[in-house]
Amino acid sequence: MRIALDAMGGDHAPRVTVAGALKAARSGVEVVLVGPEDRLKEELQRQGGHLPIHPAPDWIRMEEQATEVRRRRESSIAVAMELLQRKEVEAVVSMGHTGATMAAALFTLGRVKGVERPALLVEFPSQRGRTFLLDGGANADCRPSFLLQFAAMGLAYAEASGAEAPKVGLLSIGEEEGKGNALVLEAYPLLKAALGERFFGNVEGRDIFLGTTEVVVTDGFTGNVALKLAEGEAKVLLSWIKEALTSSPLARLGALLVLPALRRVRAKVDPAQYGAMPLLGVEGTVLIGHGSADEEAVKNALLRAKALAEAGLLERVKERLSRLYV
Amino acid sequence: MRIALDAMGGDHAPRVTVAGALKAARSGVEVVLVGPEDRLKEELQRQGGHLPIHPAPDWIRMEEQATEVRRRRESSIAVAMELLQRKEVEAVVSMGHTGATMAAALFTLGRVKGVERPALLVEFPSQRGRTFLLDGGANADCRPSFLLQFAAMGLAYAEASGAEAPKVGLLSIGEEEGKGNALVLEAYPLLKAALGERFFGNVEGRDIFLGTTEVVVTDGFTGNVALKLAEGEAKVLLSWIKEALTSSPLARLGALLVLPALRRVRAKVDPAQYGAMPLLGVEGTVLIGHGSADEEAVKNALLRAKALAEAGLLERVKERLSRLYV
Repeated sequence: MRIALDAMGGDHAPRVTVAGALKAARSGVEVVLVGPEDRLKEELQRQGGHLPIHPAPDWIRMEEQATEVRRRRESSIAVAMELLQRKEVEAVVSMGHTGATMAAALFTLGRVKGVERPALLVEFPSQRGRTFLLDGGANADCRPSFLLQFAAMGLAYAEASGAEAPKVGLLSIGEEEGKGNALVLEAYPLLKAALGERFFGNVEGRDIFLGTTEVVVTDGFTGNVALKLAEGEAKVLLSWIKEALTSSPLARLGALLVLPALRRVRAKVDPAQYGAMPLLGVEGTVLIGHGSADEEAVKNALLRAKALAEAGLLERVKERLSRLYV
Repeated sequence: MRIALDAMGGDHAPRVTVAGALKAARSGVEVVLVGPEDRLKEELQRQGGHLPIHPAPDWIRMEEQATEVRRRRESSIAVAMELLQRKEVEAVVSMGHTGATMAAALFTLGRVKGVERPALLVEFPSQRGRTFLLDGGANADCRPSFLLQFAAMGLAYAEASGAEAPKVGLLSIGEEEGKGNALVLEAYPLLKAALGERFFGNVEGRDIFLGTTEVVVTDGFTGNVALKLAEGEAKVLLSWIKEALTSSPLARLGALLVLPALRRVRAKVDPAQYGAMPLLGVEGTVLIGHGSADEEAVKNALLRAKALAEAGLLERVKERLSRLYV
């Protein structure tokens, strides 16, 4: 069960990617670093670790166009996808360039049968555990049929993550059927007909954190706004709480006693714990992280890639999709 | 400066509306209750207060269709709008039915010249004060020109609220021009050409809480999802913090000392403090609150209606819109 890591992906590569990979290796993940051999050897030496390297002399810079990847076949992300396509690894992890990683996955691996557009899956912490939302930003404009496919892929993912009889909510602005925008109004009957009892109906923004359904589907524009709003709100709210806890000598004294408990809440909403977002609907297990990810996020992304590959995520996605249009 | 309150609007009317109105009156707002005279007199008596009543024998129930308001001219919300149209009051406040209130405002007051669709304005607390977002849910599907009009109305509102040289951000899924869905890509050049320096460019979900711009514009679907997500997240996060603070004897001891400071954070994110959302783009000052609002929210909605009317909100909106298409 080998996982390829695009060692040149992300804002602080290869320092952070190598550090995260070494941590993941110590936790039992067989990582293959993909990137320029000399540079990676040097970085491994600096950090005092050993990992196998699969050489790729080139890489796509964060400011370059995603489409560059089609031409630059020796770039780290293109080479990593080739390894996955040849089944020399079981999954690929990249901490960005998001667009280039999606383009490379589509170009080299292709789409799963029945999928018009692959989607990014986002995890939110919720009152009942976790909520899986898709699309997290791969498709800004969606057709109703995309949402149905997102729903099937989300169910497969929830099941691979251990959820029992998960349900899908259609993100809207009112609970009743008939509330929403044109996309939601058209998607509702499709989901209802194809998913039967697994379709919960409409859910609202608040249901994401309440955990009303395990899976929530929406277009990639709304999904990405939701993801970044949630991250921004958590950050600002916690900064206010920190401020409040140092606002008086008495509060500072109390803060010392409650700090360990508050750290657990902070960890719950820390994006780094999820590591990366799976790209669902391509012929392979691919995870894409934040460009600004730290080594903890890289480690968690690699652990998650391993767990998903072991849980047979790709086969589950294919199976769910094959049942969709019978 | 008289404000009409639809005394039969909201889930707990007229108990909560009358209680909120009495509080607002004690804070210097001249409130007129609109609704069935006997029932309101009885409720005032029960609560031991006095307020002028403008009689309206009928009211639109929460479960009824919004369009009912066109036919039911003696309903409390229709009568309140008539008072505003005849300038017998300076503003109307209703804690729902949202759809019926919007329909009544459109039907009785009409649209401001240059507005294709009125919009709901939502306030978010932010690191730099407050962020005004529109549309909060009045228009699920929008055309690019709507977003330009929302921007002009948002600027007028920010100025009426005391902001100096406020800027508008276009909510998108990437900061650079050229990132976003079809609506955003079309709206961007319109905003840029019409607003000049007042247009900041694209903002992302996180910028709402960071307060990058005073005004954020988006379609009513995305805006309403953002509003309800933000409320749900604040509620769940604060419940986790409360749990954490009672998780051990030591934490409970510390919690006693930090509680007053934490209450201030809770108040900052409490939707009741905003009271109600202004409906911008109709020929009058109209505020619409949550159906589930408590008396504190009703009071704050009335105080806000007074402040906005005094700040000349409607004239500012008209002035901003008149400059848009010169």
